[in-house]
Amino acid sequence: MSLMLDEIAEQPAVLEKTIRQETAKLKKLGDFLHNKDIDLIVLAARGSSDNAALFGRYLLEITTGIPVSLSAPSVFTMYNAKLNLKRALVIGVSQSGEGVDINQVLKSAKKSGAFTIGITNQADSLMAKIADETLLIHAGREKSVAATKTYTGQMLHFYLLASILGNKKIDFQRIPQFTNEVLKLKPEVEELVQRYVFMENCVVVGRGLNYGNSYELALKLMETCYVVAERFSSADFYHGPLAIVERRFPVILFAPKGITEKSSLDLLKRLKELHADSFSITNDKKVASLSSRSLFLPENIDEFLSPIPFIVPAQLFAAYLAEAKGIDADAPRSLSKITKTI
Amino acid sequence: MSLMLDEIAEQPAVLEKTIRQETAKLKKLGDFLHNKDIDLIVLAARGSSDNAALFGRYLLEITTGIPVSLSAPSVFTMYNAKLNLKRALVIGVSQSGEGVDINQVLKSAKKSGAFTIGITNQADSLMAKIADETLLIHAGREKSVAATKTYTGQMLHFYLLASILGNKKIDFQRIPQFTNEVLKLKPEVEELVQRYVFMENCVVVGRGLNYGNSYELALKLMETCYVVAERFSSADFYHGPLAIVERRFPVILFAPKGITEKSSLDLLKRLKELHADSFSITNDKKVASLSSRSLFLPENIDEFLSPIPFIVPAQLFAAYLAEAKGIDADAPRSLSKITKTI
Repeated sequence: MSLMLDEIAEQPAVLEKTIRQETAKLKKLGDFLHNKDIDLIVLAARGSSDNAALFGRYLLEITTGIPVSLSAPSVFTMYNAKLNLKRALVIGVSQSGEGVDINQVLKSAKKSGAFTIGITNQADSLMAKIADETLLIHAGREKSVAATKTYTGQMLHFYLLASILGNKKIDFQRIPQFTNEVLKLKPEVEELVQRYVFMENCVVVGRGLNYGNSYELALKLMETCYVVAERFSSADFYHGPLAIVERRFPVILFAPKGITEKSSLDLLKRLKELHADSFSITNDKKVASLSSRSLFLPENIDEFLSPIPFIVPAQLFAAYLAEAKGIDADAPRSLSKITKTI
Repeated sequence: MSLMLDEIAEQPAVLEKTIRQETAKLKKLGDFLHNKDIDLIVLAARGSSDNAALFGRYLLEITTGIPVSLSAPSVFTMYNAKLNLKRALVIGVSQSGEGVDINQVLKSAKKSGAFTIGITNQADSLMAKIADETLLIHAGREKSVAATKTYTGQMLHFYLLASILGNKKIDFQRIPQFTNEVLKLKPEVEELVQRYVFMENCVVVGRGLNYGNSYELALKLMETCYVVAERFSSADFYHGPLAIVERRFPVILFAPKGITEKSSLDLLKRLKELHADSFSITNDKKVASLSSRSLFLPENIDEFLSPIPFIVPAQLFAAYLAEAKGIDADAPRSLSKITKTI
C-alpha cells in the first residue's frame, strides 16, 4: 500500500472537515466581497493546484458571470508587467503555500489594488501571510509527492467560493458522501489496471467542469506511472491531435451524465471508427456501452457536482497502475514535493 | 515538396502584405479603443489559432497592462453562461472565420456589451460579419491542413494590436525580414530530421512569449508526424511531468537569447543529468552548447520579436520530419481543414 492510496481514502473526511471548519469564515467573506465591485477573477497556481484552478475557472464563470483569467506567472516574474487589477479578485492556489512565483503574483496583485485570497494546506505558509484572506484545506500533512487530498480540497474551496459569489444554490454538502461511495470502486480499479500495464502513451479527455480533471489524471499518469499522457478537451481534440490515434491507442474520458453527454458520445463514436481503445469514467449508460472499458459511478451524481467524485477513481487508477508497473508512486524519480519555481 | 513547405516559404511575403494593408485600419481602431474604458481582453480560439492566442495573451498583458483571459468556449456554448463583459475587448481568432463555437462566443460577448474583433483569413466569413471590426490576414488560401502562414499572420496581428493598445514602440516591421533569414535554415533542417525519424514521443518546452510556440510545434508534430508530443512551460515541467524523462527522451526547446535564458539553461542542465536528448531552437550560444542538437538563428533577433521567426524552423522541422516518416503533411489521417466544433 502506498501513502498515495492512504491519502486518496482520506478524502471524504478531509472534505467534510474543510466544510465544517471554513463555512463561518466564508459567510463573512461573502458579505465583504458583495460590497466590492469585482469584475474579474484571476487564478494563479502551478501543477495539480493549477488543475484545480482550471476547474475553478469553469465553475466560477458559470456560477458568477464574472470573467476568470488563469494567471501566467511569468508575466509578473520575468517580464515585470504591472497589470491593472483594481477591480479584480486574485486567488493563489498552492498546497504548500510556498510556491515562489505564485506568491509573487499575489504580492504584485495587492500592489495593483486587487483583493487577494490564498487557498492552501499550510496555515503558517508565506501565502497565508501575503494574502488578504486565507482559505484552508484541512488535509493534514500530505506525505505522498502525488497530490490527491489537497487537489480535491482545493476544488471544494472553489465550490464554497462559488456559493458565496454566485446566485446558484450549491449542494456541496453532498460531495463528501459521493466521494465516499466512489471509493467502493477500489477492488474493480485494482483489477482493471492490469490491462494497462504496458501502456506507454495515452490521451485524457474531459470537458467543461471536468476539463481540469483531464489535466490532473494526465499529470498523475506522468508523475506516478511515467506514461506520456496528453490532455485535451474533447472539442480541441478534433483540431489536430486526433491524428495521433492509431488502432488500440488508449483514450481515457471523464464523461458524466448530463450537459457534456453529446460531446462524449460523438468522440466515442469517432474513436470506435478509428479502432482506438477507450476507457470512460462515467455514470452514463450510453457512454459505458460505447466504451472499450469503463468505471461506472453512481447515477445520482449530477454533472455539476461530478468533478470531485469523478477524479477519485482516476487517482486510484494512477496509484494502482504505478504499483502494477513496479513504480513507487510516493517518490517518483526526478521529483520533490515542493517545487519553488521562478 | 508538400504544400505545407510552400506555404511556410510564403510567410515573409504574407507578413509584409498584412502590415501594408492593415496599418491604416489599425490606426483608426487605436484612436477608437483609447476612448473606451477597456479593463479586460478576452481571446477566443481553437487549434493553431488558440496557440496564436496563447502568444497574444502574454504579449498583450506585457505591453498593455490590461489583464487577458483565454476564453473557455464551453462556458458559453454548453453552460449558457452570461458573462459580464461590459468593459471587455473580445477577440475571436479563426483561420476560416467559420468556427461555430468561436463565433458563438463573439455573439454572446456582443450581447454582454463587449467590443468585438475578429482575426481571420476570410474577409467574407461569418466571423467578419459578426465582429465589430475585422483584422485580415492576407495569406491567400491555405491549402495544407497544417496551418503555418495563417498562424504567423495571426501572431502578427497581436503585435499590431499591442502597438496601438500599449505604450511600447514595437518594431514589427523587422519581422518579415527576420522570417526571411531563418528560412535559410531549410537545408540544415532537412538533414537534421533524419535523426528523429523513429521518435514516437517528445516534450516541447517554451516560456513566456514563446510558450504558445511550444503548443504549436507539439500540435504540428501530432497532426503531421503522428508523434505524441506534450507541451509545457519550462516552469510547469518541473511539477510532475519531468518524471517521464528517461535516458534519450527527446525534449525540444524554444530558447531565445534574453529574458528566458536562465530558465532554459537550468532546464538543459537538469536534462543533461537525466541523460535526456535536448534539441534547442535558439540564438543563444550558451543554450546551443548545452543542447544535444540545436538550430541556430541570427543573434540580432530580440526575444520580444522572436516568436514569429522562431516558429519557422519548427514548422520546417515538422514538414520535413513528416516527409522522412513517409506521411503526407498536407492531408493527415482523420483530419479536415475546417473543424466546426460545438
